Amino acid sequence: MAVAAAASTLRNMLVQRVGKKIVAVGRNYVAHAAEMNASADAARTSDPLIFLKPTSSYVLPPGPIVRPRGFEIQHEVELGVVIGENAVRNVSVAKAMDAVVGYVCAIDVTARNVQNVAKEKGHPWTVSKSCDTFCPISDLIPRQKLPDDVLLEKGVELYLKVNGQERQRDSTLSMVWTVPELISYVSSRMTLESGDIILTGTPSGVAYMLPGDVVEAGITNHCSITFDVQDGESSAWDEYRSSMAT
Amino acid sequence: MAVAAAASTLRNMLVQRVGKKIVAVGRNYVAHAAEMNASADAARTSDPLIFLKPTSSYVLPPGPIVRPRGFEIQHEVELGVVIGENAVRNVSVAKAMDAVVGYVCAIDVTARNVQNVAKEKGHPWTVSKSCDTFCPISDLIPRQKLPDDVLLEKGVELYLKVNGQERQRDSTLSMVWTVPELISYVSSRMTLESGDIILTGTPSGVAYMLPGDVVEAGITNHCSITFDVQDGESSAWDEYRSSMAT
Ligand SMILES: [Mg+2]
Ligand SMILES: [Mg+2]
Ligand SMILES: [Mg+2]
Repeated sequence: MAVAAAASTLRNMLVQRVGKKIVAVGRNYVAHAAEMNASADAARTSDPLIFLKPTSSYVLPPGPIVRPRGFEIQHEVELGVVIGENAVRNVSVAKAMDAVVGYVCAIDVTARNVQNVAKEKGHPWTVSKSCDTFCPISDLIPRQKLPDDVLLEKGVELYLKVNGQERQRDSTLSMVWTVPELISYVSSRMTLESGDIILTGTPSGVAYMLPGDVVEAGITNHCSITFDVQDGESSAWDEYRSSMAT
Repeated sequence: MAVAAAASTLRNMLVQRVGKKIVAVGRNYVAHAAEMNASADAARTSDPLIFLKPTSSYVLPPGPIVRPRGFEIQHEVELGVVIGENAVRNVSVAKAMDAVVGYVCAIDVTARNVQNVAKEKGHPWTVSKSCDTFCPISDLIPRQKLPDDVLLEKGVELYLKVNGQERQRDSTLSMVWTVPELISYVSSRMTLESGDIILTGTPSGVAYMLPGDVVEAGITNHCSITFDVQDGESSAWDEYRSSMAT
């Protein structure tokens, strides 16, 4: 229990209070890109696809994950890489792992209908990825508990279940770009700071979450998190827009 | 000088240390949308277009604004709205201004070639908007110095010059969505926290910035900021990708 409390405190302090950004990677598992009718660049000839989620989207177990009105939300279970004490910029792949203090299991909640419209129109993905509660996370798994050689050579297994039914399960070895490669790439564009997280992409099996669902996600042998799903209420903005229309 | 120092300290403490996100608004001036061959929704029938920039992109005068290799960068002068002490979620338009502690003049630096490819492919805009130094900002202008009635009824004038030549100049009254409307909308999607900034969109006249350029931006009668532009160096990631190709 002391260890669990420490992991929770580390997550709270570092990721939730100090951390300033969540950099997420799209299409980093070939099978997931295929189910999105998109191309994961398995040949690795173009840079990783990245986007931002705000830290205001963090939510802790038991949630709820809130579905905004008019949004159809899907789960994407992902390995989150947490940046440690020192900011990194332009770090090489060879030295990238030195920046890591630990990991979280996260769900990259995505409003798929909103994202699909954004893709069609060439608009930013932001709204589809950034609402409050769109980034459920676990306690911190310190890097010592998941050593580099285990992560990078043996891999760890991500899984996600909805109402007890398995939806996603794959090894992190299936990633197109490895964790050190992602850190090096992101740090070539933007400085990674203490408590920042990189979400490393989701395996195949993404599907909708409905109000009343219970979603369990985890990293086999490392952590398990469970969240309720609820419908959101009408917002002041919705009411304002409605009043404009009349 | 005491006032200037206080404004600088407020910006440093609140925006740079405490603030966690930059929510930027696209196409909020009709004339700029037109020059992008895009539609600003002058009829206001769809929600504002928003995207995120990371706080790691802040840079203070005199810069430099750094142009990454292969990126063609443009200036977008914008009014930045700074959120005060209390987080806001689902705030109404009528009460939105209570969340504001002050303003900054900012430049939403944009890699236009990278953004154009992203739009074509339906990819996130993130890389084109998020590199280090892509958010030059001024000191904080406290809300008392720019009262709500002045901002919302009289408007303030944004301008930007490159090497002394005027490129952008317009009143904030030309915005499609007003400041309180933008705050209400964004807060209906994501909680706005202390030190967060909303960039409220740019007037027409955006153009390229080249190494050696001197860029001056400001809000008439309120602030003026000046930045140098420089070319960036090759990154560890660039070298890694080159070595992969051989
Ligand atoms: Mg994802
Ligand atoms: Mg952020
Ligand atoms: Mg802009």
